Amino acid sequence: MSFLTNKKLVIVGAAGAIGSTMAQLAAVKGLTNNIALYDPYLKGLEGVYEELRHCGFEGVNFTFTDNVEEALTGASFIISSGGAPRKEGMTREDLLKGNAQIAADFGDNVKKYCPNCEHIVVIFNPADVTGLVVLVKSGLKPNQVTTLAGLDSTRLQSELAKYFGIPQYAVSGCATLGGHGEKMVPVTSDVMVMGKPLSKYNIPADKFEEIKQKTIQGGSNIIALRGRSSNLSPAYVAIEMIEAAMGGKKFTLPAGCFVKDGMYGYKNVCMAMKSTIDENGVSYTEANLSADEKKALDASYEHLCKMRDEVIGMGVLPAVADWSKYNKNL
Amino acid sequence: MSFLTNKKLVIVGAAGAIGSTMAQLAAVKGLTNNIALYDPYLKGLEGVYEELRHCGFEGVNFTFTDNVEEALTGASFIISSGGAPRKEGMTREDLLKGNAQIAADFGDNVKKYCPNCEHIVVIFNPADVTGLVVLVKSGLKPNQVTTLAGLDSTRLQSELAKYFGIPQYAVSGCATLGGHGEKMVPVTSDVMVMGKPLSKYNIPADKFEEIKQKTIQGGSNIIALRGRSSNLSPAYVAIEMIEAAMGGKKFTLPAGCFVKDGMYGYKNVCMAMKSTIDENGVSYTEANLSADEKKALDASYEHLCKMRDEVIGMGVLPAVADWSKYNKNL
Repeated sequence: MSFLTNKKLVIVGAAGAIGSTMAQLAAVKGLTNNIALYDPYLKGLEGVYEELRHCGFEGVNFTFTDNVEEALTGASFIISSGGAPRKEGMTREDLLKGNAQIAADFGDNVKKYCPNCEHIVVIFNPADVTGLVVLVKSGLKPNQVTTLAGLDSTRLQSELAKYFGIPQYAVSGCATLGGHGEKMVPVTSDVMVMGKPLSKYNIPADKFEEIKQKTIQGGSNIIALRGRSSNLSPAYVAIEMIEAAMGGKKFTLPAGCFVKDGMYGYKNVCMAMKSTIDENGVSYTEANLSADEKKALDASYEHLCKMRDEVIGMGVLPAVADWSKYNKNL
Repeated sequence: MSFLTNKKLVIVGAAGAIGSTMAQLAAVKGLTNNIALYDPYLKGLEGVYEELRHCGFEGVNFTFTDNVEEALTGASFIISSGGAPRKEGMTREDLLKGNAQIAADFGDNVKKYCPNCEHIVVIFNPADVTGLVVLVKSGLKPNQVTTLAGLDSTRLQSELAKYFGIPQYAVSGCATLGGHGEKMVPVTSDVMVMGKPLSKYNIPADKFEEIKQKTIQGGSNIIALRGRSSNLSPAYVAIEMIEAAMGGKKFTLPAGCFVKDGMYGYKNVCMAMKSTIDENGVSYTEANLSADEKKALDASYEHLCKMRDEVIGMGVLPAVADWSKYNKNL
C-alpha cells in the first residue's frame, strides 16, 4: 500500500463517532502510515484502535493514547473533533465556554508539544470560534488552521439538485460563506446547473428561501432523522481537507479560515471563505457577491465578532490587541 | 472519479452503524456509481442517505428505499447486514430463529427480484447459518454467496503481532477456519512472522491458548470497550469481499462459504474455508492442518451441522434432502 506521506496524523477525539470514522477513512485513503488516536476516554479509544487493527490495513501503524503529550509530540497534521456536545440543562453559553476552553487547552498543547505541526483542521462547534482560539493559542500561521465549513456547501448542492430533480454532481460551484451557523450565506454567483449559470433558471424567491433553510438546517435534520449527530459527512469532508494539506487532491469547497487583513473590511475572525487548501495550507479570494449576499455576509461577520468578543469576555481568549503576544503570526 | 463497475450494489441494513459505514466505504473506494440503500427503518435510512449526499461524492448516485422490491430489482451485488441484534430477554434460540427467518425472507426476495444477482455477502449473525439459508432460498450458486469470517483471521494476526511486539503486517498468512463462533479454529500452518514460519518461534502452549482466546473474544471485547458492537471492521472487510467479487483486488482472507462436496468429509454447511474471492466468486482449497487443528475443525463442523439442523427443525430451512427443490445448484 502506498501513502501520501509518512508524517504523523493525530485524530483528536478518536473514540467518538466522527473521530473513529476519520481514522478509518484516513487509512482507507492511504493518507499516511502513521495514525495516532487520542481521546481522554481511553476505554472507548482502545475499542476503536482494536477495530482498526481488525480491518487489517497493510502497512498502517496505529497508536492510541489518552496522554496528550504523547499524542501530539511529532504531529505534522491534526484533525480535532474533540469537543463536548451540548447536554441537557446546558445553555448555549455553557457550550460555547466549554468548547472554547477545550480549544484553548488544545492550542496551548500544540504550542508546547508540536509547534512544527503543518496543518490543523478543527471541527468541533462552534467551529468558527474554536478554530480561532486554536489559531491564537497554538502560535501557528493563519494558513495552517482551518475549520470544517464545506458541509454547508455540499448541502446547498444537494438541495439545489433535489429542486431540479437531477444528479447532485450536475450542480457545481456551490459556496456557503461566513459563519458555520444560522447566519451562513449561500452564495450563488459561481453555481452552475447542468452547465448553465443558476441565474438562468429563475428559481422563485420563496423556493430559493426554502432551499437555503434546508441547507442551514442540514445538520439538525440529520439529528432529527438519525437520532444522533452526523458522523459520516463531517468525517469525510474533514479528511479531504487534511488530505489537501498533505499535498493530495486540492480542497476547493469553502473552508473556515482566519481573516486578518480586511478583505470586505472584515478582520480578526475565522469564517468560511472562498478558499483552496493545498500543500501550502489555506488561501482565499474574494467571492463575487450580490448586494443581498454582501449584506447577509456583513451580518454573519458581525455575529462572529460578537461571539468572539463573548469568548474574550469569558477570559478564554485574550483581547484582540494582545493576540500577537501569543502568536507572532497574527 | 472512476468506478470498478456501474452495476447496482445494494446495502441491506443501511440505516445501521455497519450498513452506513459500508455505504460510505463503497463510495470512497469507488466500487460503483450505483449504491442503493435499503432498510425497513426509513427515517434513519433517509438520515444516512442525506449524510452521504453531504459528503459530495462526485458521480455517485445514491438511492434509498424501505421497499424491498425496489431495492433488490436490478441488483448485481448485495451486502446484507440486516439482522436483528440480540435483545434483553431473548434466548439464543430466539435470536437464531429470528435472524434465520430474516435470512429466509431475504433469500426468497433475491430469487423473486434479482435472480441474476452476481454475489451476496451475508454478515449478520450467526453468519454461518444465515448465509446458508440465503444460499438455499435464493437459488444462487454456491460460489455466489459468502459470509463474513475474515475478522477472525485479522484478529489472530493482530494478537500474534502484539505477542511478538511487532507491526501487525509483519505477521501474514493467518487463517481462522470453521464456524464464526466460539468453535472457530485458528490455523497456523501458513503463518509467517517476520518472514519465518510461526513454528520456528515455539510459542508456549498457554500463551498460544491466550492468543486464541483473545482472537475468539475479539468481537465481544469490542462491545466491552466501546459499549456497542463493532462497525468499522465488519464494514471494511465486507466491502473488501464485495470489491473482490466485482473484479477488484482479490480477497484472500478466509470467507464463509458453502461446502457441498465433502472436502475433509464435510458437507452441506457454510463455514470459513481457506478461500479466494475474485470476479468468479468464491473458491476454496484444503488447508494444511495439524492433527489438533483437524480435530478442532471436525468439532466446529459438527457444531455447524447441529445449528443447521436446529434451523431445519424450526421449519425455517427445508430438510437437506429437499434443498435441490429450492435451489437447483445444490
